[in-house]
Amino acid sequence: MNASAPVPSVLNLRPEAEQAPTSGIVDVFSYGRNKPGIIPLWVGEGDLKTPSFICEAAARSLSEGETFYTYQRGIPELRQAIAAYHERVYRKPFDPERFFVTSGGMPAMQIVFRMISGTGDEVLIPTPAWPNFAGAITISGARPVGVPMTIDAKGWHLDFERLEQSITPRTRAIVINSPSNPTGWTASHEDLRLVLSMARRHGLWIVADEIYSRFVHDPAFDIEGRTPSFRDVMEHEDKVLFVQTFSKNWAMTGWRLGWLEAPPALGQVIENLVQYQTSGTPVFIQRGGVAAMEQGEDFIADQIARAKRGREIVASLTETGLVELPLPAGAFYAFLKIKGATSSKDIAFRLIDEANVGLAPGSAFGEAGEGYLRLCYLRKHEDLVEAVRRISEALPRLVG
Amino acid sequence: MNASAPVPSVLNLRPEAEQAPTSGIVDVFSYGRNKPGIIPLWVGEGDLKTPSFICEAAARSLSEGETFYTYQRGIPELRQAIAAYHERVYRKPFDPERFFVTSGGMPAMQIVFRMISGTGDEVLIPTPAWPNFAGAITISGARPVGVPMTIDAKGWHLDFERLEQSITPRTRAIVINSPSNPTGWTASHEDLRLVLSMARRHGLWIVADEIYSRFVHDPAFDIEGRTPSFRDVMEHEDKVLFVQTFSKNWAMTGWRLGWLEAPPALGQVIENLVQYQTSGTPVFIQRGGVAAMEQGEDFIADQIARAKRGREIVASLTETGLVELPLPAGAFYAFLKIKGATSSKDIAFRLIDEANVGLAPGSAFGEAGEGYLRLCYLRKHEDLVEAVRRISEALPRLVG
Repeated sequence: MNASAPVPSVLNLRPEAEQAPTSGIVDVFSYGRNKPGIIPLWVGEGDLKTPSFICEAAARSLSEGETFYTYQRGIPELRQAIAAYHERVYRKPFDPERFFVTSGGMPAMQIVFRMISGTGDEVLIPTPAWPNFAGAITISGARPVGVPMTIDAKGWHLDFERLEQSITPRTRAIVINSPSNPTGWTASHEDLRLVLSMARRHGLWIVADEIYSRFVHDPAFDIEGRTPSFRDVMEHEDKVLFVQTFSKNWAMTGWRLGWLEAPPALGQVIENLVQYQTSGTPVFIQRGGVAAMEQGEDFIADQIARAKRGREIVASLTETGLVELPLPAGAFYAFLKIKGATSSKDIAFRLIDEANVGLAPGSAFGEAGEGYLRLCYLRKHEDLVEAVRRISEALPRLVG
Repeated sequence: MNASAPVPSVLNLRPEAEQAPTSGIVDVFSYGRNKPGIIPLWVGEGDLKTPSFICEAAARSLSEGETFYTYQRGIPELRQAIAAYHERVYRKPFDPERFFVTSGGMPAMQIVFRMISGTGDEVLIPTPAWPNFAGAITISGARPVGVPMTIDAKGWHLDFERLEQSITPRTRAIVINSPSNPTGWTASHEDLRLVLSMARRHGLWIVADEIYSRFVHDPAFDIEGRTPSFRDVMEHEDKVLFVQTFSKNWAMTGWRLGWLEAPPALGQVIENLVQYQTSGTPVFIQRGGVAAMEQGEDFIADQIARAKRGREIVASLTETGLVELPLPAGAFYAFLKIKGATSSKDIAFRLIDEANVGLAPGSAFGEAGEGYLRLCYLRKHEDLVEAVRRISEALPRLVG
């Protein structure tokens, strides 16, 4: 189970480093990754390889010798392509100077928290939440403060009152992940306006993770093929930082390519932080990103259709009578409440052993996730049908 | 000149982020990078593209669909190949569990300082030094403390007395970069023993940057094709962390691939920090690294020969009577003392304008580097001959 021995105290590490939590998802993944026949629905990636036109763009760049140091903010062609993508999706003009290429969404987030939070600060995160928010905040020296969302038969909701009560003089930012990993909660324009107004009143930054925005399943949240965005409601001077990734839309999880959208006034600070973080992103990888942005719409449409069908398949888990699942409005995760479950981690490990299916334990997403399991349904239908069959068969034994 | 406007105070950034210095090398590079006909000797990279067998290994991996998330510590094949490389170069056994793949030497260093230093701490750096050490330390919240080296007709020397006097109760580590960028200073075994003993007495970490180790020009420091290493003098339990990169030996600057060598007891902490930094390095890039390690020795030999010849060519700059240059024992930089120079940055900018040659200003490497210019001589000989001609022609005007 990959339990780690404590670091000998003679090595005398910084507490922020030692306290960086081991991801509860990685624990389970490491335990079961090499098990023959396992259906892996634990991590946030689909089963499709990166489309070949993207791989070929990168290979071409390599063969042309684009193997030298490059711009710390990203190659101009990619920053331009990202701006053009935003213009298509949000139907208004975007300045390429707002976009900074990073080596994945995670580096973008690390730069964000490096800029706005540190020792003594607090950052609010509605939970359940992707554990890497808390990880990045902890490493910055700040304290992640989870604010539980509420749930009813219609699904998850932001608890605005509790969110505002959690603000202290140390609070620096609020993380808003919509559509949410793991719950699929999706903010309405009204939700976004309320958060923005709260942030303005208290002088806080908003860290917006809208990476699943194209995966919108509920027509009530569908604005011409994407979910409501802070970009629709914010003013130019609002303190909003967007973290973004190529991983999900274009099946590029293994490429480590993302971007940060920020006020251009932060350009030099971001450039310096990139310099001391990764010293830039390989040009040949960025060429893959340009191809994705410029030729990737058909592929995204296929992925979205795949996710929609996957969502319907896994919904049938409720027929066991042991699972509750308000249908997620967006993203590609089912966050399954398991009736009678006390330790979601135990159940996740036992599902590997007894059903040969890999799910992520809800406890990895904060206390509010205990008793849940997260299932990624961006996968081929036969696998999902078989996974539902195996889980339905095993579950009565596990919570009996 | 890429001078950056201050960040509006309403944005209220963390001081560590705002204080992250803009690299004085990047300033000059940004100014002149697109000038037609410029001979670019400013940054630490040669003019050769990555060898095709390395590019092809990466392209093959891409076409085989290795585009998914992977091991946070690096793929087992690469960790094994790195261990085997060390066994060949250092002629003793190495455990693959000591090696952690990172997305470049810079991310390795960021993880190192994240583990061992933070707010309130100090880290000693003999100077002149590569500016990114101080950058990474500053961002960690700690304070980089430059300790000037001394220079005489034979070259640069560590000032052990001054180094030990600079240790305070807040000191956590000493950075030792041998062979040094920018000076070419190379530690003897006796030097390394003295540093190690000092670190032991005061309970400090050593951060060892020996990335130029294969580029050894002075036979007095040549141990079967590499310079003296802490690996030769340390005991198993010594607190030494090695940062490493594929950039120099294998001409892979643009790939962002490196590694960290550390006690295996730190494995889980390092894995967590990788998770929240880059979430791993692309598998297809790591496949390039395996090819480099396993088939790269002929290429390295060519690079070393190229550097040796380059070193001889640039030595002729002393014939101007305006340049002092104790010949560097290792690495591939000439650190030129310009007689009568007061601002190396001004001279660097004027050399771009008037000689169309790009050098890095010595002031970028700390106060001890003021009055110097750094020239990277890992480049084709015609370019170096022409650069020497142009510099020799312009210099009398610039310091006249």
